[in-house]
Amino acid sequence: MKKLVLLSGGANEALAWRIGSVMGVEPSERTLEDFPDHELHVELHVDVGGCDVYIVQPTTPPVGSHLMELMLLADGCTRAGAARITGIIPYFGYARQDRRVRSGEPVAARLLADMMSTRLNQVVMLDLHNPAVEGFFSIPVEHLSGVPLLAEAIRPALTGNNLLVAPDLGAVKLAHRYADVLDLPVAYIHKERLSGVKVTTRRVIGQVKGKAPVVVDDMVSTGGTIRSALETLLDLGCLPDLTVVATHGLLVGDALAHLASMPIRKILVTDSVPPPPGHKQPLHVASIAALLAETIKRLHEPYR
Amino acid sequence: MKKLVLLSGGANEALAWRIGSVMGVEPSERTLEDFPDHELHVELHVDVGGCDVYIVQPTTPPVGSHLMELMLLADGCTRAGAARITGIIPYFGYARQDRRVRSGEPVAARLLADMMSTRLNQVVMLDLHNPAVEGFFSIPVEHLSGVPLLAEAIRPALTGNNLLVAPDLGAVKLAHRYADVLDLPVAYIHKERLSGVKVTTRRVIGQVKGKAPVVVDDMVSTGGTIRSALETLLDLGCLPDLTVVATHGLLVGDALAHLASMPIRKILVTDSVPPPPGHKQPLHVASIAALLAETIKRLHEPYR
Amino acid sequence: MKKLVLLSGGANEALAWRIGSVMGVEPSERTLEDFPDHELHVELHVDVGGCDVYIVQPTTPPVGSHLMELMLLADGCTRAGAARITGIIPYFGYARQDRRVRSGEPVAARLLADMMSTRLNQVVMLDLHNPAVEGFFSIPVEHLSGVPLLAEAIRPALTGNNLLVAPDLGAVKLAHRYADVLDLPVAYIHKERLSGVKVTTRRVIGQVKGKAPVVVDDMVSTGGTIRSALETLLDLGCLPDLTVVATHGLLVGDALAHLASMPIRKILVTDSVPPPPGHKQPLHVASIAALLAETIKRLHEPYR
Amino acid sequence: MKKLVLLSGGANEALAWRIGSVMGVEPSERTLEDFPDHELHVELHVDVGGCDVYIVQPTTPPVGSHLMELMLLADGCTRAGAARITGIIPYFGYARQDRRVRSGEPVAARLLADMMSTRLNQVVMLDLHNPAVEGFFSIPVEHLSGVPLLAEAIRPALTGNNLLVAPDLGAVKLAHRYADVLDLPVAYIHKERLSGVKVTTRRVIGQVKGKAPVVVDDMVSTGGTIRSALETLLDLGCLPDLTVVATHGLLVGDALAHLASMPIRKILVTDSVPPPPGHKQPLHVASIAALLAETIKRLHEPYR
Amino acid sequence: MKKLVLLSGGANEALAWRIGSVMGVEPSERTLEDFPDHELHVELHVDVGGCDVYIVQPTTPPVGSHLMELMLLADGCTRAGAARITGIIPYFGYARQDRRVRSGEPVAARLLADMMSTRLNQVVMLDLHNPAVEGFFSIPVEHLSGVPLLAEAIRPALTGNNLLVAPDLGAVKLAHRYADVLDLPVAYIHKERLSGVKVTTRRVIGQVKGKAPVVVDDMVSTGGTIRSALETLLDLGCLPDLTVVATHGLLVGDALAHLASMPIRKILVTDSVPPPPGHKQPLHVASIAALLAETIKRLHEPYR
Amino acid sequence: MKKLVLLSGGANEALAWRIGSVMGVEPSERTLEDFPDHELHVELHVDVGGCDVYIVQPTTPPVGSHLMELMLLADGCTRAGAARITGIIPYFGYARQDRRVRSGEPVAARLLADMMSTRLNQVVMLDLHNPAVEGFFSIPVEHLSGVPLLAEAIRPALTGNNLLVAPDLGAVKLAHRYADVLDLPVAYIHKERLSGVKVTTRRVIGQVKGKAPVVVDDMVSTGGTIRSALETLLDLGCLPDLTVVATHGLLVGDALAHLASMPIRKILVTDSVPPPPGHKQPLHVASIAALLAETIKRLHEPYR
Repeated sequence: MKKLVLLSGGANEALAWRIGSVMGVEPSERTLEDFPDHELHVELHVDVGGCDVYIVQPTTPPVGSHLMELMLLADGCTRAGAARITGIIPYFGYARQDRRVRSGEPVAARLLADMMSTRLNQVVMLDLHNPAVEGFFSIPVEHLSGVPLLAEAIRPALTGNNLLVAPDLGAVKLAHRYADVLDLPVAYIHKERLSGVKVTTRRVIGQVKGKAPVVVDDMVSTGGTIRSALETLLDLGCLPDLTVVATHGLLVGDALAHLASMPIRKILVTDSVPPPPGHKQPLHVASIAALLAETIKRLHEPYR
Repeated sequence: MKKLVLLSGGANEALAWRIGSVMGVEPSERTLEDFPDHELHVELHVDVGGCDVYIVQPTTPPVGSHLMELMLLADGCTRAGAARITGIIPYFGYARQDRRVRSGEPVAARLLADMMSTRLNQVVMLDLHNPAVEGFFSIPVEHLSGVPLLAEAIRPALTGNNLLVAPDLGAVKLAHRYADVLDLPVAYIHKERLSGVKVTTRRVIGQVKGKAPVVVDDMVSTGGTIRSALETLLDLGCLPDLTVVATHGLLVGDALAHLASMPIRKILVTDSVPPPPGHKQPLHVASIAALLAETIKRLHEPYR
Repeated sequence: MKKLVLLSGGANEALAWRIGSVMGVEPSERTLEDFPDHELHVELHVDVGGCDVYIVQPTTPPVGSHLMELMLLADGCTRAGAARITGIIPYFGYARQDRRVRSGEPVAARLLADMMSTRLNQVVMLDLHNPAVEGFFSIPVEHLSGVPLLAEAIRPALTGNNLLVAPDLGAVKLAHRYADVLDLPVAYIHKERLSGVKVTTRRVIGQVKGKAPVVVDDMVSTGGTIRSALETLLDLGCLPDLTVVATHGLLVGDALAHLASMPIRKILVTDSVPPPPGHKQPLHVASIAALLAETIKRLHEPYR
Repeated sequence: MKKLVLLSGGANEALAWRIGSVMGVEPSERTLEDFPDHELHVELHVDVGGCDVYIVQPTTPPVGSHLMELMLLADGCTRAGAARITGIIPYFGYARQDRRVRSGEPVAARLLADMMSTRLNQVVMLDLHNPAVEGFFSIPVEHLSGVPLLAEAIRPALTGNNLLVAPDLGAVKLAHRYADVLDLPVAYIHKERLSGVKVTTRRVIGQVKGKAPVVVDDMVSTGGTIRSALETLLDLGCLPDLTVVATHGLLVGDALAHLASMPIRKILVTDSVPPPPGHKQPLHVASIAALLAETIKRLHEPYR
Repeated sequence: MKKLVLLSGGANEALAWRIGSVMGVEPSERTLEDFPDHELHVELHVDVGGCDVYIVQPTTPPVGSHLMELMLLADGCTRAGAARITGIIPYFGYARQDRRVRSGEPVAARLLADMMSTRLNQVVMLDLHNPAVEGFFSIPVEHLSGVPLLAEAIRPALTGNNLLVAPDLGAVKLAHRYADVLDLPVAYIHKERLSGVKVTTRRVIGQVKGKAPVVVDDMVSTGGTIRSALETLLDLGCLPDLTVVATHGLLVGDALAHLASMPIRKILVTDSVPPPPGHKQPLHVASIAALLAETIKRLHEPYR
Repeated sequence: MKKLVLLSGGANEALAWRIGSVMGVEPSERTLEDFPDHELHVELHVDVGGCDVYIVQPTTPPVGSHLMELMLLADGCTRAGAARITGIIPYFGYARQDRRVRSGEPVAARLLADMMSTRLNQVVMLDLHNPAVEGFFSIPVEHLSGVPLLAEAIRPALTGNNLLVAPDLGAVKLAHRYADVLDLPVAYIHKERLSGVKVTTRRVIGQVKGKAPVVVDDMVSTGGTIRSALETLLDLGCLPDLTVVATHGLLVGDALAHLASMPIRKILVTDSVPPPPGHKQPLHVASIAALLAETIKRLHEPYR
């Protein structure tokens, strides 16, 4: 029997405590200090020798620093003789840099996978932008989905007049996964270029007139995609009553304030990324703590 | 200065000779023998010590056997002291198995990448179904596109009444790459499910009536996708004058015969996969030999 | 305690079921499907997370395809979090390609060892042609012998007038291992070249006249070695009453029919390779299922 | 002949341009962009295929982010087929975390070495705090010294009444290396604990009274060590005329302002770390550009 | 639960038996034979399949041969399926070759770390000359200290007039660790070079006159350092009553006889290296068996 | 163009100088010192940056120490930036430990291969006992044969009445390789066990009466095999005029003196192992220097 140890990096401590609370396991004490020269000092205050360790650390911005924290914790565990180290990384920075568009570019997601694999034995991820990123790791990747959770969370707010909208072609598959649960029609927006002219127009496939759209995506970063979608939808006569559902609420800079100024009833995200402090309407957060707790329990089960 | 050596596996010898002919370099002699116990016997009849070796071997079916040939050749090169070994793999078997849909599945494309990386130093690929598969390799992947070549090859056959058609959402990006070169409008087919009922209907986005459709995809395997697309397009009033353009003409079993029985004017593919012997109308093959020859020259250049 | 899981590839399912039957463990359900494009689709229908998995898959011809099956199953197990994966490979294809005779050749057996080691943690093998092949693996190799089993299986058929015969020098050590159990004299055949002339003659060392020979070898492939041995032995006056004992009954093509047409009383092999369907006299098959079952139990013991 | 390519990360672009200026080679164009979600986007605008690439990137704070930049550039080079990639890392963040003081700590310097080794083939370092850190890398480490350069730079400022001072025991070896060049006596400060009482006192070994001390260390971070040394030295009657010489002028926060308020005539550092913008008295910077340029030329020489 | 197995190489069998005696576990039987061609033949007579194995083998001179023994034992364990292999290496040969002083030198300690890491999963070390050597290993290093043990062993011999002496700057930190336990003042010897002349003089920092010095170091090899220290101390008026405390009593050649001829009351070392046979005054040996036994128990604990 | 550097370890310096003399290249200066604590100190006095380095070091007894020398030299070369490092290892210690006979044994030859592969890029070997040992290395192995050389060296001594003799079954293939060159008949000795009794008798296959036997083997170690062969041959009436030919003249202890006391006309070996100092009749040594020089030139050729 190997003891389970739960550790938290600094990227999302609140999530780690929520997971621990569901599991009845407190995150173990550790020092996570920023030295005056901005080097991190990490120290575990628990003996992890022979333990099955789970480190909660989504690699949210600043990615470099949160990656260092994760790896320093993992190195500390390795050297102290941990039996297995699992990274709980519900938000995976650089996931969208999964290919080279031009030949002088890196494949950043693979680079992170390689660096993580120098110390981790397994990772748990959530709604990767491209599920093939799993193949960047040779270590096991437990790829979870936030869709069931978010779909149930948004259901009470549906009015009977809703329509799921994918804001671009990349989100169509995701929209259909929501449709399977919520039994709603799907529309989507795409950019089209007419023959002979080099002009791009945004076009909506599906009947949106008079509908209250629920825009779904894997993440909301600056909010730019949402804004464009909203404009297009309003032009086509949809109701000024938008709902946004996304797994990762990155909401960089003043994205939330901008979105709040639009006719958006609700923005629903998970806590894979810590929500802006003191956030309020229209942002709602559904916690993935129970999903992660259950996953950790399942992964630990054979070692009990 | 490192000598360039061109080697061919058994998967597509004609292509290797065509490449060699463009480069003015003959594929080196090697034995490739099937022993009575169905083990392959490989032997190089060229001294590759210190050479820059290029092995032409798309991993066409049977993939296992063609992979073995490639790896045996590469092992022979390694042990004989080759300086660098590049796999020229314009068709990459298992490329579509790039993620786990269910948790008991493998990620076959990553497995192949790992096995190849035990002996190869670099690979050259063509129109991967998912470009992120590049990230499955830690060795450099030169990812080429057959689009410019195929677009030019199909241009003379265009009638002024054509329309590019993506047969499913996965092919939309590809269709737009053709549109950029050929300056044609793009339509695409997608499956839609109406609210409340679990029935799927095929729907076409774009004006197809009276048009001569050019269906583009990365590969034609059994031809099933083409058949469905054709039926849908005819239902919507397009002309019974279809053109099919795809990089990889796998054409398994009697796929070609089936397609030949439909109102298809032309099927244009490259020779990444050897075309069926004695093929004729409507199949046309545009060779990638010059593209690969130029790539090999470019990769070899710094070692000259 | 780690759960034991038994899986079977497609190379020898009957053997896997026999092993399972001895152990009281049913091989777990898995899909093993040949797609229309001849790519294999593999899926486990058992949760192997934290399990001690044994995959039964001799790499019989076609080796490439059976290797792919083995590796796809192993990749599926790795990604699903298996604790340890052992390949049960009683017949190891390419085992005889264990050295370079000429400098342009590969060392195929080492190549397979390297490819297998990308996903397996341990292998179980049986009567390797050259026991040093164990050293091609850095993972543990459990090297079993079928000699005790085959010797006991042939004993009742001995007439008191028998003689063990090694058909070439490579089989002499094996013949002596049979002699240790059966207490029979050993003769062997070798090729000799006389001084001054470049003619090879086959010569038998040992008294064979009037004896009923039992030819022993590690495998019977085309049957050519047996035929030559028989001719030489008959020339020297041995009885036209041959017995053949070999661990691996590869029997490619119509080898069995050819052998059946000779004065051969019995051909005894194990089921490391599936015997030809509907085989009958003179082929007899002794099962290694109990030997493998016991080995699996022993290897699993410390994890119970 | 392999072409030399000089690349600069964002940590110290001025240094890269100075190196390039000495060598007559301009740093190649590359994009280094901070996306709105704080992910870095890197792109090379030079074809590095077959080239011998040198990336100038000291891992100054924020280390995580500068490490990411370095690794993304290196990944881009690897994928584009660079023949060899050398990291020019004159300041190596986390170099002082080279051992575990307590069992729950990581060995951060080894972690960085491992992450760097996933993409770099060689590194160039300068005055490592512990030279054994070289052994953390399996790739070649060219370990340079800034002592000759700094000694010559400080020589004109010497008054004939100077004394070298090591501010702690760890700097004694370094002080002697300066003494070898400048032919000055060495004194050093150490902490002593008297028997029976748990009180630490700072003590100076060497005659400092009436002398103008030159304090030497590998780096100046917050300036705390310098301040303590100065207090101790003044107490013992040295002249209020201090000179500070250190390879790495990290000078975090308002360290420089604090130091400027003390009786310090001159602080001499190299440009391994970019000096504070608009810095002036008493900070003087001696450039290592010529040293690095000469090292790069020497390393590149055999590939010309 | 994994069974604990204790194995001994030939470098220090007595220590292995002492450890076993404390633990109530006998070292397992194994053959360790020197063949006539001076190749070692190793064979385990215990089934280590699935076991947690501890191999006691300090790499004392001749290092090459003792390293081979260690690695052959570890290879035997690996191939027999051991679950984890820990090297108990209280004396680590080549530990002082931890950096390159000149560019044509190796970093021998890293080389040994790499060779050991091909078969070991973990090592236990004692009072490494440079604690950073831990970072040469990627496998966990349990770094123990003999200071508490040696301090207690020397305490009864203290007279109230003692002083700890570090014979060079490298030993100052160690001396302070003894001072913390024994509450004694610390003096140390260093080499100083006066300005203007290239003459080195040995100088002592601290009041040694009339004191009985206790010289502490990590190891005593030829005894040369001790002799020089003694001469310097006597010159300064310390009592001719020296005590020497060191973790590793290598005592090569006739070092012990030489030391015995000096006014040395006691030389205290541990049994990390086997003491010279039949040694007597002034050599005293404090055993680390209990410390190692306790460490092994702690490391094994999570696998019980 | 990469410069060729020839280095010699201490195992066979005379051979290295002979190779250098044939090539017109002097072995580079290096220090190879035995410290008082029996640790080796190695230092290169040549700049090997970017060079193609060949290190001559057969791993003769004491293997551990000679292996350390080889690896320390190779580590020094690696860290100094050598482009490629080839080990010239004409005698490979532990080559006969190439399999496990019992389950508690190591596979020593694979262990050495793994340790060597941590620093070497290629090895050159000579007449390996089992050629499959090549497969223990993943780096290229150039496997040479001393047979042509030794056959020519012995030819003048042949009397027209000679017969090649393999002293055991393992040497039969080797004997036939000599027969191909010298056109002599082959006899061989084997151990036979008669049915019913557990007594082994030595038996000779071939007509030896009145012949002058030339016993061939891969190595002569203690001379025991030669002695037994001689006794058996004399019993069967061969002339008391023996010649012995072997690639490796290990001749441990007083083996040479023992052999000199027998009716042996000549013992012919190569200088793969340094012959006993001041050796005389009947030992003759044929140098492999020219063979190795030519091999080094061939391997270096593509880098010129």
